[in-house]
Amino acid sequence: MSTITVKAYGTESKTADLQEMNIERRETTPKDVEIEILYCGVCHSDLHTARNDWGGTMYPAVPGHEIVGRITKIGNDVTKFKVGDLAAVGCLVDSCGTCESCKKDLEQYCLNGFTGTYNGNDKHLGGHTFGGYSEKVMVDENFVLRVPENLDLAAVAPLLCAGITTWSPLRHWNVGPDSKVAVVGLGGLGHMAIKLAKGLGAEVTLFSRTPGKTEDAKQLGADHVVISTDENHMDSVKGKFDVIIDTVPYVHDVNPYVATLNISGTLVLVGYLGGLEPILNTVPMIMGRRSVAASLIGGIAETQEMLDFCGEHNIVSEIEMIKMQDINDAYERMLKSDVRYRFVIDMKSL
Amino acid sequence: MSTITVKAYGTESKTADLQEMNIERRETTPKDVEIEILYCGVCHSDLHTARNDWGGTMYPAVPGHEIVGRITKIGNDVTKFKVGDLAAVGCLVDSCGTCESCKKDLEQYCLNGFTGTYNGNDKHLGGHTFGGYSEKVMVDENFVLRVPENLDLAAVAPLLCAGITTWSPLRHWNVGPDSKVAVVGLGGLGHMAIKLAKGLGAEVTLFSRTPGKTEDAKQLGADHVVISTDENHMDSVKGKFDVIIDTVPYVHDVNPYVATLNISGTLVLVGYLGGLEPILNTVPMIMGRRSVAASLIGGIAETQEMLDFCGEHNIVSEIEMIKMQDINDAYERMLKSDVRYRFVIDMKSL
Repeated sequence: MSTITVKAYGTESKTADLQEMNIERRETTPKDVEIEILYCGVCHSDLHTARNDWGGTMYPAVPGHEIVGRITKIGNDVTKFKVGDLAAVGCLVDSCGTCESCKKDLEQYCLNGFTGTYNGNDKHLGGHTFGGYSEKVMVDENFVLRVPENLDLAAVAPLLCAGITTWSPLRHWNVGPDSKVAVVGLGGLGHMAIKLAKGLGAEVTLFSRTPGKTEDAKQLGADHVVISTDENHMDSVKGKFDVIIDTVPYVHDVNPYVATLNISGTLVLVGYLGGLEPILNTVPMIMGRRSVAASLIGGIAETQEMLDFCGEHNIVSEIEMIKMQDINDAYERMLKSDVRYRFVIDMKSL
Repeated sequence: MSTITVKAYGTESKTADLQEMNIERRETTPKDVEIEILYCGVCHSDLHTARNDWGGTMYPAVPGHEIVGRITKIGNDVTKFKVGDLAAVGCLVDSCGTCESCKKDLEQYCLNGFTGTYNGNDKHLGGHTFGGYSEKVMVDENFVLRVPENLDLAAVAPLLCAGITTWSPLRHWNVGPDSKVAVVGLGGLGHMAIKLAKGLGAEVTLFSRTPGKTEDAKQLGADHVVISTDENHMDSVKGKFDVIIDTVPYVHDVNPYVATLNISGTLVLVGYLGGLEPILNTVPMIMGRRSVAASLIGGIAETQEMLDFCGEHNIVSEIEMIKMQDINDAYERMLKSDVRYRFVIDMKSL
């Protein structure tokens, strides 16, 4: 298969800084669109992958799965897009298409394993996939999203991961105008969970460990902020929430939040991979038919639904724009939660 | 309020055997029916309450919340029953009737606390309620169930707790002819879970630690038995089940069962109250939108639905009939799981 050389930004090892490099991408196939990348959001997973925090990183690693841009070329069999269209790519660029999950538009749970936008197994060229920290990308049109024309394009980028990761559980657990939703953690995911739950008409509460984020949360649309370190404050919301979106990415005690679930309510973990410590107590669960669940990004159709919804409701992410060359500093600032609420790379800078 | 003296069987302390005693029950109020108790099932909760295993037992304690009998008297305002009707009473005899849960027919999650059939706070006489190990009981007609005439009455009794406890989660999590259901544990609850899931049309698998129960499980209706201590066997059902009803009443590792849930599947704990040890791992949960939930008995309308369903499908419990005087031996045998699958007391023996 013929390839073209594309400028990118990546790393050769877990200890090296990211730097400019050339990568090979396939020539556009009949089902592909070629996208000139205009903006790429910076997700915590980018950093974890670059530094091999989860193991399994294949080098050179080029992160980036919050991609927006413009279509510059289409394959002969492409029917959904034309040259000049805005387009976006999220965390997936392929899946088997035939398993029970794929048949239900749940490509994120593809039973044969979806192809990640980066660090996935490249079915076309062999080797591994390269993400959005680059000039352009070729993607099967079935994994490309349409972007509403009315939104700030740079601020759309984080919707492709932070947006869909919180949208999918809000939708799966039927959040609507009668729902009381709480969000744990106010970062990239948390701030989108507030905006999207509010957009769906829910009454939205942020759980925060400190009062410092109250003002911000309310500006983002939260109706209430509950200080999770204040026992009386926590007691005052016992049994209140139909759905809790827990975005905290490290181990933490979920028991105090489970106690704030309404009868038949569900707490959904979207940020934490690992063991639940301290141990989960089933007593408040059985006494109110409460559930603890977890959810991973979202399918392609659901991602399109979310983007269309954001277009209709004028919802985008809060971003801080950076140059490609600032990425190593941005990673350090992310580790200190020093970003409100998502870095987005202006790819012109590459 | 005037009372009548009723013969019962109960215990004066956590270390004493159960023995015959007299208790005071209220005279039938205008909304009450008086039920002559014909049979009463023996639930593990009876034993835990008699021995104060959970704390909070009020003595004298008269257990029994799987009650069937015949109506011998009705109050002036009773409209749903007449003298001579078969009737049943389960785990609840009252609730507030006004909270959000009660308004949704979820009296078991009454926000003001339901009144348990025994060891509950008696709103009429003060003190605490006495259960079904007795000649008769007076109950508000709204907490009395109709019993299908075609079923073996003694074998109906366990439906009032073991039946509804497994029916409610099967219904809440939408089990039907396309569902794959697994049941963990083959006791009073487990054997009802198999029968009811099968009755709903599901493909049913029993998880058992030893092959000894295979024959029995299949006779009860299970399509498959998976030996949970056999890793290869467990691997063969990874990702298979839409709903797992986990009836195990003591602490146990749920992680191997979570791995057998299908995408979007739910494991429902109905037997265990306490901390989940070993700790629950969120990785298989996030990778397939899987949930761990818990569920408590069921509401009155749902209990009636279950009894009507059992009437239509000829479903009853497998029982061993005992005399009231055998109850202390029966408790000892229950502790050794030496019962297939539920003791029922023939109340004529009292």
